[in-house]
Amino acid sequence: MPTETRSESRGAAAQNAGGGKGLTYASAGVDIDRKDAFTEGLDTVLRRTFTPRVIPNPGGFAGLVRLDFNHKLFARNYKEPVLVACCDGVGTKVKLAAELGVFDTVGFDLVGMNVNDLVVQGAEPLLFLDYIATPTLEDRFLHALVRGIAEACKKSGCALIGGETAHMPDLYKKGDFDLAGFCVGVVELKRVQKPARVQAGDVILGLASDGIHSNGYTLVRKIVSECKLDLGKVYEDALPTAAVKKGKRGKAKASEPEGPQATLGQVLLTPTRLYADPIVRLLRSYSVKTVVTGMAHITGSGMEGNLCRALPPTLDARVDRKSWPVLPVFKFLQAQGKVPEAEMWRVFNMGIGYCVIVKPAFAEAVAEKLRSYGESVYVIGEVVKGTGVVRFKE
Amino acid sequence: MPTETRSESRGAAAQNAGGGKGLTYASAGVDIDRKDAFTEGLDTVLRRTFTPRVIPNPGGFAGLVRLDFNHKLFARNYKEPVLVACCDGVGTKVKLAAELGVFDTVGFDLVGMNVNDLVVQGAEPLLFLDYIATPTLEDRFLHALVRGIAEACKKSGCALIGGETAHMPDLYKKGDFDLAGFCVGVVELKRVQKPARVQAGDVILGLASDGIHSNGYTLVRKIVSECKLDLGKVYEDALPTAAVKKGKRGKAKASEPEGPQATLGQVLLTPTRLYADPIVRLLRSYSVKTVVTGMAHITGSGMEGNLCRALPPTLDARVDRKSWPVLPVFKFLQAQGKVPEAEMWRVFNMGIGYCVIVKPAFAEAVAEKLRSYGESVYVIGEVVKGTGVVRFKE
Repeated sequence: MPTETRSESRGAAAQNAGGGKGLTYASAGVDIDRKDAFTEGLDTVLRRTFTPRVIPNPGGFAGLVRLDFNHKLFARNYKEPVLVACCDGVGTKVKLAAELGVFDTVGFDLVGMNVNDLVVQGAEPLLFLDYIATPTLEDRFLHALVRGIAEACKKSGCALIGGETAHMPDLYKKGDFDLAGFCVGVVELKRVQKPARVQAGDVILGLASDGIHSNGYTLVRKIVSECKLDLGKVYEDALPTAAVKKGKRGKAKASEPEGPQATLGQVLLTPTRLYADPIVRLLRSYSVKTVVTGMAHITGSGMEGNLCRALPPTLDARVDRKSWPVLPVFKFLQAQGKVPEAEMWRVFNMGIGYCVIVKPAFAEAVAEKLRSYGESVYVIGEVVKGTGVVRFKE
Repeated sequence: MPTETRSESRGAAAQNAGGGKGLTYASAGVDIDRKDAFTEGLDTVLRRTFTPRVIPNPGGFAGLVRLDFNHKLFARNYKEPVLVACCDGVGTKVKLAAELGVFDTVGFDLVGMNVNDLVVQGAEPLLFLDYIATPTLEDRFLHALVRGIAEACKKSGCALIGGETAHMPDLYKKGDFDLAGFCVGVVELKRVQKPARVQAGDVILGLASDGIHSNGYTLVRKIVSECKLDLGKVYEDALPTAAVKKGKRGKAKASEPEGPQATLGQVLLTPTRLYADPIVRLLRSYSVKTVVTGMAHITGSGMEGNLCRALPPTLDARVDRKSWPVLPVFKFLQAQGKVPEAEMWRVFNMGIGYCVIVKPAFAEAVAEKLRSYGESVYVIGEVVKGTGVVRFKE
């Protein structure tokens, strides 16, 4: 019996229906039995992500997660718990994954896009659900996808308690698919991150990204096609530089391209870095003092469009773009596509995937802590009086 | 400033970037500015769904909902709160909506598919997020969709706190789009619905559906195309019968077709009935006694595939299919497509959209309560010794 709560996953009782000469669901291209088999095979993969909070609910209509746990070890004793929820996809990175036949990395991306947003509000991730829309129920594809999702959930302390696999052969072309993810976490009311906490003089730390993450892929793919780039070829200029590779970047991920041997396709599919675990650890380590005053996940719209979301209307973020190395893949794409400089900064993370704004007295301590968790951290700017925008130092 | 937390909705600071002769996001078909405008226009629509639990979070990365509320009026004082979460789409009903250019009803469906699943576990819906994948940012389309979602959220007591509008012109053909919804609710641990509660002798009540709801549309569309049915035509045989229309079915919904005048397209787009509000009211009214022992939302796989999910492995549900009127639209589709009888029962709800299993002594009282909330209720069967399956009385 499947533990997860994927809809339409329990048609076992009806498996012998159908047939005859009239129209059936199968004749219309939808195979319920096939889908049941897929769902049952996922059981073990999902179970590995289960935290002690999960209440197994085989065959249930929805997933169950306890907010508080009586057992001392897991009790958080929220006084005024606030649920934090977000939803995101991975954009047209799915098209690239489909073209290359690699699916675990976009599964990883899906979780990254969501948990990274969630921790910005100060929340600890609790649960995740995925929506997969596909024209095929091919095992290799679905299992790789869900394996990637489950692996990233586990790394983010988040239980994958359910999802929906929508088999829609006439909405998606063969080879196409779409993904959406949904994440819920919890935070104590008085610890909800809000712009009002940020003050002039606060220091902005930038956490290195692992690559393009999951934004701007319509432009990336346009560059690849217009400039006739070969996804199977190794372009030296697009590879992570030795300098960056030597830095402390935490444990290597199985899904990460191997450096010098990585093809352009592999470089472009490098999954979104998961900031949830280091950020949750950081916030927990300052449970009394307010040290972190603001955070931002750098996604579509880049640093300008996202860091401003952490600011009150009376303060600016002054960021020095020379304070961190722009990843080679961005320089490569810009040069190939002759993309205007401003457009690059508007669309991509340019090497910083997450920002943490801290009180100046703690800047060095926070940076060191994050480095000890495996992050590459740069002091990229400071908060000054202004109008709630990001200004780049010329 | 938009209150909702749709991703990529805050690119304002970067609006003047781009241009020049090289490749840009706009030249690749993605318009960030356009999307910002859409998101800001939604503010009022979303705010109407906000419950007192919502903490407005303008420009935030995720939505915030307080679980408990100090104010006496709203306090629920959960002792051991369990979060309940689910995810669902509306299948290829989106294709039909796109063909007919009607979008509010599938928005309504999206919420129905999720909240109806959620309440099966005994939960009260708290929050909802939507994922819209689209090749166009046309206002009329997106606003109708979100209006439908918001209206259904409001009717289900659920706050629409965010979502993601993914603009992907090269994944979806012009006119196509996809939808996924995510819903979170809460239930007291000891009130989580589970199969172990159901006992032999319990009575099964069936709540009438409003039509096809949101399952089986690949087959429905196949029948329409193979049998060359005209979606703009009125087929008398497909209309809700006078008998059903005269029953107490609650307040008429604006989006419900008008009966005799309804075209086939309108009949097929009739939105999913929302059972959340009546079920939450029912469960609240029995806060001490265990009266409701099990529930099921009848979706894909029909009554056999869903009612069995409420049963322990030692009991069967014996259902008398003559105990309620099969809606005319099902008979019409079956006759047109020459669909085998078993296949109809396997794919469609056939007129019962939700089941409530109750202790026999309370069956009449529960049915009366549900009728007073506007539902059409039938005694459709009983629980007997068995092996965890649904058996139809011949």
